[in-house]
Amino acid sequence: MAKDQRQVESITNMDVDFTQWYTDVCTKAELIDYTSVKGMFIYRPYGYAIWENIQRELDRRFKETGHENVYLPVLIPESLLQKEKDHVEGFAPECAWITMGGNEQLEDRLCVRPTSETLFCEHYKNIIHSWRDLPKLYNQWCSVLRWEKTSRPFLRHREFLWQEGHTMHAEADEAREETQQMLNIYADFLENVLAMPVVKGQKTEKEKFNGAEETYTVECMMHDHKALQAGTSHFFGDGFARAFDITFTGKDNQLHHPFQTSWGVSTRMIGGIIMTHGDDNGLVLPPRIAPIQAVIIPVAQHKPGVLEAAGALVDRLTAAGIRVKMDDSDKAPGWKFAEYEMKGVPLRIEIGPKDMEKEQCVVARRDNGEKSFVALSELETAVARLLDEVHDALYAKAARNLAEHTYAAATLEEAKAVQEQKGGFVKTMWCGSETCEIAMKEQAGMTSRCIPFAQEHLGDVCPVCGKPAVKMVYWGVAY
Amino acid sequence: MAKDQRQVESITNMDVDFTQWYTDVCTKAELIDYTSVKGMFIYRPYGYAIWENIQRELDRRFKETGHENVYLPVLIPESLLQKEKDHVEGFAPECAWITMGGNEQLEDRLCVRPTSETLFCEHYKNIIHSWRDLPKLYNQWCSVLRWEKTSRPFLRHREFLWQEGHTMHAEADEAREETQQMLNIYADFLENVLAMPVVKGQKTEKEKFNGAEETYTVECMMHDHKALQAGTSHFFGDGFARAFDITFTGKDNQLHHPFQTSWGVSTRMIGGIIMTHGDDNGLVLPPRIAPIQAVIIPVAQHKPGVLEAAGALVDRLTAAGIRVKMDDSDKAPGWKFAEYEMKGVPLRIEIGPKDMEKEQCVVARRDNGEKSFVALSELETAVARLLDEVHDALYAKAARNLAEHTYAAATLEEAKAVQEQKGGFVKTMWCGSETCEIAMKEQAGMTSRCIPFAQEHLGDVCPVCGKPAVKMVYWGVAY
Repeated sequence: MAKDQRQVESITNMDVDFTQWYTDVCTKAELIDYTSVKGMFIYRPYGYAIWENIQRELDRRFKETGHENVYLPVLIPESLLQKEKDHVEGFAPECAWITMGGNEQLEDRLCVRPTSETLFCEHYKNIIHSWRDLPKLYNQWCSVLRWEKTSRPFLRHREFLWQEGHTMHAEADEAREETQQMLNIYADFLENVLAMPVVKGQKTEKEKFNGAEETYTVECMMHDHKALQAGTSHFFGDGFARAFDITFTGKDNQLHHPFQTSWGVSTRMIGGIIMTHGDDNGLVLPPRIAPIQAVIIPVAQHKPGVLEAAGALVDRLTAAGIRVKMDDSDKAPGWKFAEYEMKGVPLRIEIGPKDMEKEQCVVARRDNGEKSFVALSELETAVARLLDEVHDALYAKAARNLAEHTYAAATLEEAKAVQEQKGGFVKTMWCGSETCEIAMKEQAGMTSRCIPFAQEHLGDVCPVCGKPAVKMVYWGVAY
Repeated sequence: MAKDQRQVESITNMDVDFTQWYTDVCTKAELIDYTSVKGMFIYRPYGYAIWENIQRELDRRFKETGHENVYLPVLIPESLLQKEKDHVEGFAPECAWITMGGNEQLEDRLCVRPTSETLFCEHYKNIIHSWRDLPKLYNQWCSVLRWEKTSRPFLRHREFLWQEGHTMHAEADEAREETQQMLNIYADFLENVLAMPVVKGQKTEKEKFNGAEETYTVECMMHDHKALQAGTSHFFGDGFARAFDITFTGKDNQLHHPFQTSWGVSTRMIGGIIMTHGDDNGLVLPPRIAPIQAVIIPVAQHKPGVLEAAGALVDRLTAAGIRVKMDDSDKAPGWKFAEYEMKGVPLRIEIGPKDMEKEQCVVARRDNGEKSFVALSELETAVARLLDEVHDALYAKAARNLAEHTYAAATLEEAKAVQEQKGGFVKTMWCGSETCEIAMKEQAGMTSRCIPFAQEHLGDVCPVCGKPAVKMVYWGVAY
């Protein structure tokens, strides 16, 4: 493939310095810009368009399962945040505090929402009175603030975009089913849209969400074998409902507390896409989320009929529901090739005078560089098929990475050695105690990623304390 | 029409107390809820769904005219806000200030964005270098904060949802054309989607946006004859570009400052919809923005085949692209009728055993209560036609209200008398001086709404000072 050397030179090789490679991709693919507000980023048009596609796909799934969107205030009074003890302990240290409104000093400080459980509870108290008012299945698209000490594009922002679902149910079982339904929607979306295989499981007590009874998670493995928590779903029991005094009259004419869930994914998914599929030429986007699925490059575009022929491809593919863009700028073809490789566009379609004569075009795949000739008569079906093939190939590659870098270990020493030498997920049995979890962190540098739903029997004892094991756990180094 | 008396009783009559009627509609139609954060509201599912429809319609128009969406931080450092003098003077008194992040006291206070010109300028300075980088046509969907002393649902929130377009151009003329293009998109949207006739014009120097050279506006008249500024579009010249030192190398190889625009509409449009079309039975939604365009009420739904027949209507109308909902709950039909009237659903479709025999259904219009029988064989075309008729009728009624309550006045006394006795827009000639504008405010209680593009010659002198007139101005009492 022809390449513009300047463009390619400017990216660090991913095996030399994965962190720098990641930052290079975020900026060179024009996903993000830095700002004078420390830890806060600008989502540039190309990065935001990926998020818009994520939103559209997820929002459709949320609505199909009966959820409604709402918008609650960006500010939360400190007094409200304090109503649930575990919750405030977890979030207060990361809050940004408003102490002045206009010229007026505020008596009750307001924080910019780090998450909205407390505001949802206040609202639910107003609108839930009878079993007829349940379930409430609400979702909110917004940004949240966490006053983190360090930051990285998409992975750790002081402000990031997300969705937070908050639901209320008459029965605990129904709420538990909701947490599983939403976890399954996330898993399905990650695998079938983002081409990212997941490990589904439950978080340990230590790693669960502040205030939750149970937290479920989908964990992904990145190219460098580190873990990314891609989405979580929480069962709250009736803890918040009790703290906020939310009650409803049941069919039995008695007062009850409703049962609550919350669940969310964020723009860190975009970081996951980059680190799962990217390569040394830049971003590689899964076709189903790519803002541009195919870029059309006219070759020898000054020659008669070339631009018209390229324009006809745009019209036909657009009509077939494919997101397509033509670049007929005066840049050199090699420069264009490198630019759209950097931006991870799944397919590049070239058409020039020779192709026109043969009634064909050339289609190059971003993921593996393969070029093929496509007869113009078969354009739409061939492009749709190639997009599916790219998706399948990306998924297969990521699944192989996950499978090949998941190791069993029988002792703490073995776990530590595997992590140090190979990275990846280490699976071990576990006695269930937080002490052993802390030991794994301190001695092997790994946190528990989850207690996977797909349990295996790797032995009878905890590798840390030697006591009887109750579960198998995945450990890893996480973003 | 059958009505549930309790439901209808609970709304104040609009001619008795328009303010209370408005608040009643906002809460009883379940558009909004109050919160413990003063001046901040919850957009409930039905209210938010209206905003989602507004977003979808406008976003399509923005993208068709080449605009791209971005997302910039919610926080702005005080030092950045201060770079443009007029801008900070206008906004600083309404800012909410963050002074603590986590446990750390901030040296440079951060305000929650009241508008994002300054952040866009900082970003544009990073990414604009050459004439090839222009124009930049960006838009952002987000919320903004204004620390207002009083608040009303949709009309005046301390936090509200909006879109803010921010564009940069190589030439002043091109930027001016952009402000007109966007004003025309707003006007077209208001008239053809929201059924709200507009007066297009330019704001006076006194009323223009802080930091702008020129502000253009679309002004609407509400049922009570007060004005609502529904959208604005600003030409900044190169003032911000100079303050932020943004330059580009032109085709002439010289450094130039680019020219800037911004433009926005907000959820106050929903307040406008309510106050333009509503009546004593509640909300009346223009069909093209209604979350539910037709509600289907099965009559005698326990009888064989009724629910199936109603379900078939849902399927057929959904397939025809109409937003439809069936209410087969166990509530009484009269209660359902009142509920969907309150919620302003444009059409109610009833079907029962007698209708099934005659292969027809009954369609009732929300705007005028008219009922008609529709043959099932003509369902889709009849419903689509009726929705258009409702739109046209709502627009015609609002246009009549605007025409009938716009008065010419030749003297300040006359202007004052008209406003006191009849309300509405008062049009007069004007000398162009701010002194006379202030006199009109102080003595007749009216602010200038705009210098309309459609100028009329009503006389030769300013009604306040008697000096030669330069323009005709619309005056009014505004929300």
